[in-house]
Amino acid sequence: MKIQQFVVIGLGRFGSSLALELMDLGYEVLGVDLNEELVNDMSAYLTHAVAADATDEDMLKSLGIRNFDCGIVAIGSDIQMSILTAILLKDLGIKTVVAKAISVLHGRALEKLGVDRVIFPERDMGVRVAHQLVTPNLLDYIELSKEYSIVELSVPACLAGKTLGEINPRVNYNCSIVAIHKQTGVIVAPTAMDVLNAGDIMVMIGSNENIDRFEAVINEDE
Amino acid sequence: MKIQQFVVIGLGRFGSSLALELMDLGYEVLGVDLNEELVNDMSAYLTHAVAADATDEDMLKSLGIRNFDCGIVAIGSDIQMSILTAILLKDLGIKTVVAKAISVLHGRALEKLGVDRVIFPERDMGVRVAHQLVTPNLLDYIELSKEYSIVELSVPACLAGKTLGEINPRVNYNCSIVAIHKQTGVIVAPTAMDVLNAGDIMVMIGSNENIDRFEAVINEDE
Amino acid sequence: MKIQQFVVIGLGRFGSSLALELMDLGYEVLGVDLNEELVNDMSAYLTHAVAADATDEDMLKSLGIRNFDCGIVAIGSDIQMSILTAILLKDLGIKTVVAKAISVLHGRALEKLGVDRVIFPERDMGVRVAHQLVTPNLLDYIELSKEYSIVELSVPACLAGKTLGEINPRVNYNCSIVAIHKQTGVIVAPTAMDVLNAGDIMVMIGSNENIDRFEAVINEDE
Amino acid sequence: MKIQQFVVIGLGRFGSSLALELMDLGYEVLGVDLNEELVNDMSAYLTHAVAADATDEDMLKSLGIRNFDCGIVAIGSDIQMSILTAILLKDLGIKTVVAKAISVLHGRALEKLGVDRVIFPERDMGVRVAHQLVTPNLLDYIELSKEYSIVELSVPACLAGKTLGEINPRVNYNCSIVAIHKQTGVIVAPTAMDVLNAGDIMVMIGSNENIDRFEAVINEDE
Amino acid sequence: MKIQQFVVIGLGRFGSSLALELMDLGYEVLGVDLNEELVNDMSAYLTHAVAADATDEDMLKSLGIRNFDCGIVAIGSDIQMSILTAILLKDLGIKTVVAKAISVLHGRALEKLGVDRVIFPERDMGVRVAHQLVTPNLLDYIELSKEYSIVELSVPACLAGKTLGEINPRVNYNCSIVAIHKQTGVIVAPTAMDVLNAGDIMVMIGSNENIDRFEAVINEDE
Amino acid sequence: MKIQQFVVIGLGRFGSSLALELMDLGYEVLGVDLNEELVNDMSAYLTHAVAADATDEDMLKSLGIRNFDCGIVAIGSDIQMSILTAILLKDLGIKTVVAKAISVLHGRALEKLGVDRVIFPERDMGVRVAHQLVTPNLLDYIELSKEYSIVELSVPACLAGKTLGEINPRVNYNCSIVAIHKQTGVIVAPTAMDVLNAGDIMVMIGSNENIDRFEAVINEDE
Amino acid sequence: MKIQQFVVIGLGRFGSSLALELMDLGYEVLGVDLNEELVNDMSAYLTHAVAADATDEDMLKSLGIRNFDCGIVAIGSDIQMSILTAILLKDLGIKTVVAKAISVLHGRALEKLGVDRVIFPERDMGVRVAHQLVTPNLLDYIELSKEYSIVELSVPACLAGKTLGEINPRVNYNCSIVAIHKQTGVIVAPTAMDVLNAGDIMVMIGSNENIDRFEAVINEDE
Amino acid sequence: MKIQQFVVIGLGRFGSSLALELMDLGYEVLGVDLNEELVNDMSAYLTHAVAADATDEDMLKSLGIRNFDCGIVAIGSDIQMSILTAILLKDLGIKTVVAKAISVLHGRALEKLGVDRVIFPERDMGVRVAHQLVTPNLLDYIELSKEYSIVELSVPACLAGKTLGEINPRVNYNCSIVAIHKQTGVIVAPTAMDVLNAGDIMVMIGSNENIDRFEAVINEDE
Repeated sequence: MKIQQFVVIGLGRFGSSLALELMDLGYEVLGVDLNEELVNDMSAYLTHAVAADATDEDMLKSLGIRNFDCGIVAIGSDIQMSILTAILLKDLGIKTVVAKAISVLHGRALEKLGVDRVIFPERDMGVRVAHQLVTPNLLDYIELSKEYSIVELSVPACLAGKTLGEINPRVNYNCSIVAIHKQTGVIVAPTAMDVLNAGDIMVMIGSNENIDRFEAVINEDE
Repeated sequence: MKIQQFVVIGLGRFGSSLALELMDLGYEVLGVDLNEELVNDMSAYLTHAVAADATDEDMLKSLGIRNFDCGIVAIGSDIQMSILTAILLKDLGIKTVVAKAISVLHGRALEKLGVDRVIFPERDMGVRVAHQLVTPNLLDYIELSKEYSIVELSVPACLAGKTLGEINPRVNYNCSIVAIHKQTGVIVAPTAMDVLNAGDIMVMIGSNENIDRFEAVINEDE
Repeated sequence: MKIQQFVVIGLGRFGSSLALELMDLGYEVLGVDLNEELVNDMSAYLTHAVAADATDEDMLKSLGIRNFDCGIVAIGSDIQMSILTAILLKDLGIKTVVAKAISVLHGRALEKLGVDRVIFPERDMGVRVAHQLVTPNLLDYIELSKEYSIVELSVPACLAGKTLGEINPRVNYNCSIVAIHKQTGVIVAPTAMDVLNAGDIMVMIGSNENIDRFEAVINEDE
Repeated sequence: MKIQQFVVIGLGRFGSSLALELMDLGYEVLGVDLNEELVNDMSAYLTHAVAADATDEDMLKSLGIRNFDCGIVAIGSDIQMSILTAILLKDLGIKTVVAKAISVLHGRALEKLGVDRVIFPERDMGVRVAHQLVTPNLLDYIELSKEYSIVELSVPACLAGKTLGEINPRVNYNCSIVAIHKQTGVIVAPTAMDVLNAGDIMVMIGSNENIDRFEAVINEDE
Repeated sequence: MKIQQFVVIGLGRFGSSLALELMDLGYEVLGVDLNEELVNDMSAYLTHAVAADATDEDMLKSLGIRNFDCGIVAIGSDIQMSILTAILLKDLGIKTVVAKAISVLHGRALEKLGVDRVIFPERDMGVRVAHQLVTPNLLDYIELSKEYSIVELSVPACLAGKTLGEINPRVNYNCSIVAIHKQTGVIVAPTAMDVLNAGDIMVMIGSNENIDRFEAVINEDE
Repeated sequence: MKIQQFVVIGLGRFGSSLALELMDLGYEVLGVDLNEELVNDMSAYLTHAVAADATDEDMLKSLGIRNFDCGIVAIGSDIQMSILTAILLKDLGIKTVVAKAISVLHGRALEKLGVDRVIFPERDMGVRVAHQLVTPNLLDYIELSKEYSIVELSVPACLAGKTLGEINPRVNYNCSIVAIHKQTGVIVAPTAMDVLNAGDIMVMIGSNENIDRFEAVINEDE
Repeated sequence: MKIQQFVVIGLGRFGSSLALELMDLGYEVLGVDLNEELVNDMSAYLTHAVAADATDEDMLKSLGIRNFDCGIVAIGSDIQMSILTAILLKDLGIKTVVAKAISVLHGRALEKLGVDRVIFPERDMGVRVAHQLVTPNLLDYIELSKEYSIVELSVPACLAGKTLGEINPRVNYNCSIVAIHKQTGVIVAPTAMDVLNAGDIMVMIGSNENIDRFEAVINEDE
Repeated sequence: MKIQQFVVIGLGRFGSSLALELMDLGYEVLGVDLNEELVNDMSAYLTHAVAADATDEDMLKSLGIRNFDCGIVAIGSDIQMSILTAILLKDLGIKTVVAKAISVLHGRALEKLGVDRVIFPERDMGVRVAHQLVTPNLLDYIELSKEYSIVELSVPACLAGKTLGEINPRVNYNCSIVAIHKQTGVIVAPTAMDVLNAGDIMVMIGSNENIDRFEAVINEDE
């Protein structure tokens, strides 16, 4: 499978972070932004970076944009430019076009114009941080459904030194610990004999209600 | 345990999303922003919303900010205001102060000033979206360590109708499927007899290398 | 058949002229513009005029926009606002949405978003005026096809006093005069005996080539 | 007759469209605008394009403006510049000066200063579009007098397949169909045997009242 | 003869000085300016002062402008506003319209629009001051023709104590002293016996050449 | 007597007019302005013109300003720059410094700083124009004292053809006519036999009261 | 002696600090600033504070400014306003007018206008801080002449516990210690028996050269 | 001891004065400012001057900032830039970082970030000038403690010609005169025979109360 090529339009905080991570993951990335300074800052880190107006169809063609596998419209705050760029990318035949939206209406416009995936980074990050704030031990989580989640929790003091058998989360809270991340490595599918230590991170699966109950108890002890 | 109180300063896209999610999770939230229009828009959804300058110490005191459990400085782009507000929140004795940074240097300043947690929403979201783009079936993920991850994948066509025993990811890819999200509910710790269907979502744990190998195979088939 | 209701969004030169003409033609018109001064100027002449932001969905609903038969987005120069307004009008279920575009790309966006008719007033007027400039007697015209037109010409001095029979345009130029507009009224389907006078206006149908030939001759004489 | 030369001052949407159409019609056009970018965009399509201040008399002279047959002041929104340019064009001896006005008072000033023809593109286009909106089948029209018009109508479903003799507009509505535009070409002065088909366009002449009556009936059927 | 009424539009330095002098001379003056502060400052000194847009025809009518004998357009630097206001004053039927111009082209526009008198205060004052600078004793002057002037000169030290007979300007310089302004009063048509004293001002008539010769001699002595 | 050298700082409408008149009168003029465009426009007409900041002492020295006989601060509207420039000109030892003031307080500052002559062009021109407006025949005037003036009047129709003896202004109005400007030349000290003709201009000296009385009579006749 | 009254015009950082210190020293202070917010902030701390334009003579009179003993023009950065205010204060007859200057030329203007004392706070503070930076123990100093200073030095570790007799600065460095500031109080004219302790501050008088020599030795030891 | 190197960031009035004084005192100074004009003005007077953004870490490194002994953040009014620059200077390992603060909160931030010394030039100068204003003879002073000061006073007329023995300040006012600055030089530790003359400056030490008493008496006499 040949390596995919990405074009990231808009090199602000979101766009540049996305472009750099794609480079890290081993893909080719062309960065485009109107702002020459941003382009200069990024040119050392991307396959190619160009200062250009992404709503100029001729310019996009001269950059060979139609050969890219995926276009990401990461334009910061200019809805007009975001929309017009998205149209051009679709019209040029790019298979997958992803675009950042800054309002519900903006998102609706992008969807109607055929954008394959619309993302709301600030909104999503707000939600994610809210969850982390209300659960002190929560490091990260995946919402499986409205009721079920997988959560990554730092091991609280009150559990340090105990075996999973002693804690017995499946019986006591109807949750399973599916992995423990220790300094020595990750234990997948730990057994009842595995011991939790301070500094360990445990990954637990269960219903939100049960996880909350578990969380409340360990924080109370703390 | 009494309900925690949050004050969110800065009600832009990130701050308002965070504040609304905290309300949804059942906490009390005071929103503060200089912009009256933003405050009016949010006042119906938050416990309380005030149009005020968060760098005015007397004003913060008169709002009783010192009684809040957690302060979030979600100020959009004004580094000066972000820093001065963070100092005031710490000096007023708020236990936990979280602040959004928009550059590495800004983040360093916040940490030196004693902010308990510095977050970079746009940068983090850029990283997260990059991962999702390069793995077509990837819905969400938790990075357990540099080598291990938990990933949430939509079930590809080539696996539909197969039992976990047939796929046997533990043997073939050294990965475990720890949950399957079906329309009928979430199956935690599925057995070899459980069948994957189109539309299901599976949660898999393993080393990045092994997950990538699994991903590559199922995409090739597709 | 009940009288149709129109909502005109954007009361600049184009929008206000359109709205006033619709009133003149006996229809009900609601005018909407962000600019209070423009709204005040028009409120005496329209059924109703409101100063409001047309990208505010709740506001549009409260105005009962969904009951209008036709929405015209006549927003002057703000492409973003034009696009977001057009989406809202379509989503609210207005049967016919017409929008003014100020660039080719803007027009493409509007079409993709489902706007029923996209108009380019300045561009069209430029074309129309160009034709009038190069044909001194031309007052107005309809382009029937690439080859055929109907033209409204003022009668030049060299034809004054002649009968249609004398001029015989059908034989000499392969064009027909389908009407003559005299001070006393319009003669539809004039006969060979009808006389052209200075000040009369004649309506001629024919191929562009033949009309040009006719035009060239009468101007030469002049 | 030698080819006329036009100078178009102001290359915005209206001016550039007018200039391009004049080029299409085979005339020489000099375009002038203060904005270098607009001039660059147009220079490939016009005989000549210059970035210059049209209120600078010496500059106009050095461009040989006095040798042009017709000057069009298509300046967008700067009334002062429009007026001063118009004066200079007249003083330099250009035979015909046409100017775009953006308000009634602006138009009055231009007329007093001796401009040969004042046009109001947005206003006129607003009127034209209003007529098209209220008559669904109306494609274009010429207003012959306050009472009489020529209209270009798309053939409605209810008339498809009928001969002009069956419809008999002259008897039933006191209107004449003077041309039918079919895919195969334009029929001038059609006879009673000619058949209207879906997709055809008919050109009708008559009093507004009678045309409206005709229109109402065919729309009712529809 | 009834007292004339003036309307002064534009109350900047020139307009306000003119309006105040007209009041001093016993006339009724209405002052109009867009700037409320200027209007407030002047309202105590004029018959009437109004903050209004002088290009708003309805407003001018409601002020009864058509009954004024003379309108002065003293608008500072906005050529567009100056021109549109001048048109309205003429159209409203004011007998005499005077307008200040700030450039040659502006002045040409005002004249073409029928303004009765166009004045260039800064230009004229520049000329006047130039004359005073090059002639140290010159206080004021009237240019009768290209060759002849009347000049008001302060009496230099070298002439103090001399009679007109001793100076004998008519014989020596071919100039006449037509008046002497002494502290005790003005002597019209002074005789050869009248004595000039330090501090006196003399009014002399003659050709520019002769006056310059006289001036040069008395300055040399000084 | 060697030719005087002037430096004019500020080349706006007043300054440039003054500088040009000084050139016309045969003097050397250096023009200085911050605005390069103004300097370019004037450089062809002045001895020398420089784009420079007149508050930069080193720059003034390098221009050899100290050798000029007279400095005129004709800066338009920036009081600070006017004041600082005036100080520098005085400190550099220029014998005569003249400065334009735009307000009474500005004028007071200039006087306190040792400026030799402060002028208020707009205010003075306002006064002058006011006098001309209220006296239709008045062309120019010199105010000799509070009571006495010399006025330049165009000869009204009612006086055309009459001799000075017939009019006898000295007896009838206690005013003297000291000169008549005819197309053929200026008559100084005209006699009773001299005839006034339409188009002539007469210069009259007298008390304001008497001149007004004379003016009123001749206008009444008219 | 009656208490002096001060008016401080300009309530920025310098002006407000000065005004507050004057209040602390027991004087009456009227603060004036254009900025209402600054005035509100200060009004609780000054005898009186007014938001007003200090270049408005009538306003100053209505505040009774002429009765104040001393006026301080502490206007931040607007040279024009500073100069015009200074003129008004002098003209109103205030005995002592002090003004802050922000450039050499500004200072010269203020002096020429009769300001009694011109101060350059930023420049003077720059000099003072420079001295403190290069002498680590230097707390404050008075420059008596180009050669002699009084310096306030913190006692370095190497001198702690020694008597003045042991140190013998008069003999060893030709400097005198005129006072020692101990936690228990200030010893004026200390004797050879007095002991210096860590934390003490000594005041020394001598030539700069000798003080530097002393300083260098004690820092070397350190 | 090798000569210390200073870097001064911000070359406004305070920073440039400080930098120049350090040069005068014989130290090496690098000046940095964003504003090229300021840098050009200073480059002739400093060891080195660079136009650069002091928040650009790479730029600071390339300037070798880490080798400087002392960094002074003298940035005028941009709190954000001041804070970020201070962090970088500390992180680069500069031993002593001094920073100017413009508000209490700004000062607090700088201290928390580890700045070694925070100065408030405008505030301190305000205090210093206040003292000088209320004591007419006061030239300078050092505040030794809350109660004791050293003051530099010009000798008033009433003391001129008297010996210190006659004045006897120690007995009469409990103050000592520790030095007299005469035109001929500074007398340290003057005796009872030393005479005070007009124009001399005396340095006195004592409690504030006693010094005030002394001051009041000599001013009364005056």
